[in-house]
Amino acid sequence: GHPSPLAKKTCKEQDQLLSYGARANLSDIHPLGSKLLRIMEDKKSNLCLSADVTSCAELLELADSLGPKICLLKTHVDILQDFTPAFCKALKDLADKHNFLIFEDRKFADIGNTVKHQYEGGVFQISSWSHLVNAHAVPGPGVVQGLRAVGKPLGHACLLIAQMSSEGSLATGEYTQSVLKMAEEHPDFVLGFICGSKISKKPQFIHMTPGVQMQTGGDSLGQQYTNPEEVIFTKGSDVIIVGRGILGASDRAAAAESYRKAGWEAYGKRLGQ
Amino acid sequence: GHPSPLAKKTCKEQDQLLSYGARANLSDIHPLGSKLLRIMEDKKSNLCLSADVTSCAELLELADSLGPKICLLKTHVDILQDFTPAFCKALKDLADKHNFLIFEDRKFADIGNTVKHQYEGGVFQISSWSHLVNAHAVPGPGVVQGLRAVGKPLGHACLLIAQMSSEGSLATGEYTQSVLKMAEEHPDFVLGFICGSKISKKPQFIHMTPGVQMQTGGDSLGQQYTNPEEVIFTKGSDVIIVGRGILGASDRAAAAESYRKAGWEAYGKRLGQ
Repeated sequence: GHPSPLAKKTCKEQDQLLSYGARANLSDIHPLGSKLLRIMEDKKSNLCLSADVTSCAELLELADSLGPKICLLKTHVDILQDFTPAFCKALKDLADKHNFLIFEDRKFADIGNTVKHQYEGGVFQISSWSHLVNAHAVPGPGVVQGLRAVGKPLGHACLLIAQMSSEGSLATGEYTQSVLKMAEEHPDFVLGFICGSKISKKPQFIHMTPGVQMQTGGDSLGQQYTNPEEVIFTKGSDVIIVGRGILGASDRAAAAESYRKAGWEAYGKRLGQ
Repeated sequence: GHPSPLAKKTCKEQDQLLSYGARANLSDIHPLGSKLLRIMEDKKSNLCLSADVTSCAELLELADSLGPKICLLKTHVDILQDFTPAFCKALKDLADKHNFLIFEDRKFADIGNTVKHQYEGGVFQISSWSHLVNAHAVPGPGVVQGLRAVGKPLGHACLLIAQMSSEGSLATGEYTQSVLKMAEEHPDFVLGFICGSKISKKPQFIHMTPGVQMQTGGDSLGQQYTNPEEVIFTKGSDVIIVGRGILGASDRAAAAESYRKAGWEAYGKRLGQ
């Protein structure tokens, strides 16, 4: 039947109150989504480090020193000047050691047949080391189906980019709604979204928000920042993605800890604690 | 004043009748666009080969054997299993030898600060060898500004992806109109579009259409095919991008020649010859 407006509101509130740990146990959650939510709960961290550095040694050093603070490490493998297959092995070992997942921020955005090759092959062989990748929905559902053909047998999953933090992004309104629909049609491979705020009511989907800094502002190329409390408490997203706020700090470990703490406190506030 | 409907129609027809060579001489055309149009006129070719192979040797062999037939060679450098910097040098030499331009189909789709690194740095150093790249407009104008910061000083340019050949693409309607506007706002770096049909009336912009095969149909991952006459004569695009129609042929040179001829004849028909 039709729920009353009151029942609807209560539902929505319950949804906001659901802990990461409770969501990890939902019957129809993606296994990798469940694993990530458990990591978040265990490490008391909803912090994803955006490790946008250009040297493998520096990236591995970051992964080892900040690994205990994060649930997820986001890479751009194609900006590393000295990439080797050995780097992937070392990164995977650090992910195991510190219990975080690896997320290659490749933003796949081609037709299905092409992304299949880009995900599996080439110099980077992304599917061999990255638990999570992301994709733009602009090519249509073929992009998810191409990635799924490679990643699903490996237990991997993908995030769809529903919104972007950059000024003048076209991922708004109807576009965002189409991304949501595409995710709902592929729950066996899409475990959530890159977005500015919570866009799906299904607690199975994990929402991740980039462009997070303690200070508001932006850069000279259209990036716009928002803070952890805004993202987790006000906007209802699940994971804060922080890059320059940590990498640009004189003490990166202290900065990572302050972002972990701010993200976790905002989550506690959301749960009503 | 307001042009009469008749004058409007005549304008549109004149625009369709403008030859590649005449467009190369327009005062406000991008220098690389001008160069490409001259190549097309000189070689009687509006054929771009989509060289989606996974070995450097095979790609170089294709570039050398089919080079005389094409105006543009489109690469996916990230699907090459054995990429080396020496490959880029060899490809550039073949582009000079056979007078074609190189177009890395990277589909940049991130914020400005990130695409700057992806274009210039990493293992591939795309800006050091590719005349043309393309980008999705979904991040907003920062994506063009980030690429321009790297590519403009090198004389390079980019294409914006206004439409896609894949089923269910979100690059339609208002999205496509926003791409057009973004291109018009950055004519010093954007020289045209990836699209299904002509979307801009400005003859300075070059339109390129992927998913071209002699036979109609598609693949199992959403790709949809259209033929050279449809693309150049009916839809008013300028360049046909052909991949599997040539790569899948038993005689690739003969297939490339038949696509070059079909594309050129459709162009002649458009000019009223």
